[in-house]
Amino acid sequence: MIAPVLPPFLDLGGTAVFALSGALLAARLNQTFVTCAFFALLTGVGGGSVRDAMLGVPAFWLRDFWVVPVVMICALIAWFTPRKWWEGSWLEWADALGLAVFSTLGVAKALAFDVAPLAAIILGVVTGCVGGIVRDVIAGVPSILMRPELYVTAAALASSLCGIMILLGVQQEWAMGIAALAGFILRGAAMFWRIELPAYSREVKD
Amino acid sequence: MIAPVLPPFLDLGGTAVFALSGALLAARLNQTFVTCAFFALLTGVGGGSVRDAMLGVPAFWLRDFWVVPVVMICALIAWFTPRKWWEGSWLEWADALGLAVFSTLGVAKALAFDVAPLAAIILGVVTGCVGGIVRDVIAGVPSILMRPELYVTAAALASSLCGIMILLGVQQEWAMGIAALAGFILRGAAMFWRIELPAYSREVKD
Amino acid sequence: MIAPVLPPFLDLGGTAVFALSGALLAARLNQTFVTCAFFALLTGVGGGSVRDAMLGVPAFWLRDFWVVPVVMICALIAWFTPRKWWEGSWLEWADALGLAVFSTLGVAKALAFDVAPLAAIILGVVTGCVGGIVRDVIAGVPSILMRPELYVTAAALASSLCGIMILLGVQQEWAMGIAALAGFILRGAAMFWRIELPAYSREVKD
Repeated sequence: MIAPVLPPFLDLGGTAVFALSGALLAARLNQTFVTCAFFALLTGVGGGSVRDAMLGVPAFWLRDFWVVPVVMICALIAWFTPRKWWEGSWLEWADALGLAVFSTLGVAKALAFDVAPLAAIILGVVTGCVGGIVRDVIAGVPSILMRPELYVTAAALASSLCGIMILLGVQQEWAMGIAALAGFILRGAAMFWRIELPAYSREVKD
Repeated sequence: MIAPVLPPFLDLGGTAVFALSGALLAARLNQTFVTCAFFALLTGVGGGSVRDAMLGVPAFWLRDFWVVPVVMICALIAWFTPRKWWEGSWLEWADALGLAVFSTLGVAKALAFDVAPLAAIILGVVTGCVGGIVRDVIAGVPSILMRPELYVTAAALASSLCGIMILLGVQQEWAMGIAALAGFILRGAAMFWRIELPAYSREVKD
Repeated sequence: MIAPVLPPFLDLGGTAVFALSGALLAARLNQTFVTCAFFALLTGVGGGSVRDAMLGVPAFWLRDFWVVPVVMICALIAWFTPRKWWEGSWLEWADALGLAVFSTLGVAKALAFDVAPLAAIILGVVTGCVGGIVRDVIAGVPSILMRPELYVTAAALASSLCGIMILLGVQQEWAMGIAALAGFILRGAAMFWRIELPAYSREVKD
């Protein structure tokens, strides 16, 4: 079985971009710094924490020296940098990166714990999407899940590619890197060209 | 101790009806197929996953070969069948069945893990209700919990009956079947005749 | 390492006040008694359950004889006492007490499980805040997190004080008592004099 040795900078990177997106949303909603930091935490470690709770193991950030400090630094950055730096679509690009990275991490960790292949891919999607969902639900804004451009699909692409490549014997680092890149490109293209999957739209008699 | 051998078709059945209700809600909200499948998953395995996280064990769907495929098939059914099939109260009847089945499953599994009797009954209610709550909260629609007809009460009936019968020595399959039937009948009657418990309504000076 | 022997009355006390706040909110929203009791449970054990899921251990209320009965008694109290008793700010004071007590409990339990100091403090904040968040999100009311007066900050004060004192060798009971008192006083002062941290308010061109 593949040992669960994940490149730690990826875990931290995914946490950091999600934390930033949470802190920026709280700042945009005119919250205090402490609430801002709390949102950074919930968004940053939410996905990975749910993954670990599903796996029945302690959350990854409890014994890691770096995760909490990195989240706090992200909250400070969001708080003290000029707001106009973060106008426009920065926040969504950060979210796209977190989505892609966390999805592949979720798959790799699930496979390392002997989860069935299809379930591992699903757990990757959950890991990638839950941080953003928690952020949006608690802030009371419409969930990113519900936006028209494809979102879960990008997570599903990254997770599936990563899972298939690892099961085919590709080295874990390469599988995760290529899959995350593909997911990020798809989500980026969806944002840039507003690519949408066909929505459910059968006629209904009202 | 009672061994945790649950009839697998019940677990799959509860997952399937909840998954269907999640997928149908997403379709009704004009989401894409992938989001639809994601909702099917969250609703279908949400209750059981929270139960398993409370018990401190890996989620039931991670090592099961059938759960994820069944969820995907439910999403496909919701997507490709004519919408008018699902108009009316079908969705609520599916939800009622999931509620009854998952509540008894939650109790039986909790008792198999040596949980205290009253806590096991409560865990059954949580297992039955959490799938629907997650579905409604993430979709941003008013929670099914808040509807006037009795809902948690049906879960509480199924859980209590199941718990009491198992503790009295009734065979597990019979206890679960009878209790689920009773809960389903109560929820069905509540929907059909709009039975409501008295709501809190003391006069308040506004 | 410090053994996880927590004074049980504190655990029950925190559960009780949170349960009361959940039941009172459900009553205010004109729900039935059963939904009221369900809200009492979600609010009362939500924070501690998430803490335990993060730690990868079974939820504290599953094997405890007292937690579920205490929650039910709180639901009965909220239901049968005159509503005007609970008008005004009682609910918020109960919430403040639960926040302070659960935050210190979260830190003490996390440290007893060898969690890193900073992560333990964060887990304390999560334990204190999650009960109220779950209550508000499921009820569909604006989250207490978003209110102007400081809330997470009080939890952060209680958690930090408790964590630092335990690590400095102060006896656990004293550390928890002093820290909870400090957090409660800060939250109380914030409610009484409407103390607010400066909110994020850089000018934005709309």
